[in-house]
Amino acid sequence: MTDTYAPPVDALLPALRDRWSPAVFADRPVDEADLATVLSAAGWAPSTGNSQPWAYLVLRRGTPGHDALVAGLSRGNSGWVPTAPVVVVAAALTTEWQDRSGKGDYALYDLGQSVAHLTIQAQSVGLHTHQFAGFDHDGVASALGVPSEFRVMVGIALGHVAVDDELAAATEDLRARHAKERTRLPLGDIARDGGWDEPYGA
Amino acid sequence: MTDTYAPPVDALLPALRDRWSPAVFADRPVDEADLATVLSAAGWAPSTGNSQPWAYLVLRRGTPGHDALVAGLSRGNSGWVPTAPVVVVAAALTTEWQDRSGKGDYALYDLGQSVAHLTIQAQSVGLHTHQFAGFDHDGVASALGVPSEFRVMVGIALGHVAVDDELAAATEDLRARHAKERTRLPLGDIARDGGWDEPYGA
Repeated sequence: MTDTYAPPVDALLPALRDRWSPAVFADRPVDEADLATVLSAAGWAPSTGNSQPWAYLVLRRGTPGHDALVAGLSRGNSGWVPTAPVVVVAAALTTEWQDRSGKGDYALYDLGQSVAHLTIQAQSVGLHTHQFAGFDHDGVASALGVPSEFRVMVGIALGHVAVDDELAAATEDLRARHAKERTRLPLGDIARDGGWDEPYGA
Repeated sequence: MTDTYAPPVDALLPALRDRWSPAVFADRPVDEADLATVLSAAGWAPSTGNSQPWAYLVLRRGTPGHDALVAGLSRGNSGWVPTAPVVVVAAALTTEWQDRSGKGDYALYDLGQSVAHLTIQAQSVGLHTHQFAGFDHDGVASALGVPSEFRVMVGIALGHVAVDDELAAATEDLRARHAKERTRLPLGDIARDGGWDEPYGA
């Protein structure tokens, strides 16, 4: 198994092909109409039995909710997350759905689908996203009043990617993370054709 | 809370806006190059620590693996799934990742992201997808040789949408499911601005 993978990405839809997670955001606001569209894309995603087991909290820099999030960031995230003008916290409705169907795990799966739609819509309008899980989930849930049946899963930093002066002003560590090459497993390692022992494309 | 939602979908990326889950597929094969691109899109998705906790099994109609899947379909899925020329079974690498980080739940979340990228790439090349969870997961895992650290989560029916004669030949029940209106919760029900008690856009 190799670590790197050169998939046929040229053929991908540009919003999928070009999406990546910057480590430094520009000090530019997110257009409100774009933000509404990005959230709508999340809502338009498919889910198990159309259960839509997701909730999104928009936290704008300089507001108490954003302050609460920043206060609970892990050390690895405290340097870069505040560079984004907006963080959207995503939570899964695990309890209620689990009670209804016994399929609570699908809420996590479905939230992942919904966030993917959000990030791809963002990419298609020139915004970038960077998801992170390293923060005080319970603290944020408490500060924002998230009901107990929702499980806070990720924060999604949203904004424009930093370039030029803003990038040059970032720490060396952040610039290195920003420029890091994207790698993936070979397609034959993640896809099979007919049965597990038949790598796809072999 | 209302059941229906008319989001500002006009502004969405067409592959997100126009994606839907048909209940009847056309009897046309999937182009092999398109299939490779669709699987590549799944592999190019983001994941927690780039763990890529996913596996995809391509099952083509008329092969033993596809037969095993069809044999275990729930009653609600047995009528329509076999109309698609291909089913891609998606599984999450829950155990290994959980062992590594204690974050096994993120494998389900990340698989959801990856499948969303797959479905959006399919939509962008004129293919349609319809996910389903109602089948004998253990039976399929056993028939295909899926290792125990992977958890089979969904099947993804993949093909062209049926129209005209093929749609007319379907059962009344399937035609009704095919034509069913897509509804979503209002944006203010799934998104908040600053705190839980502040519906977005209110």
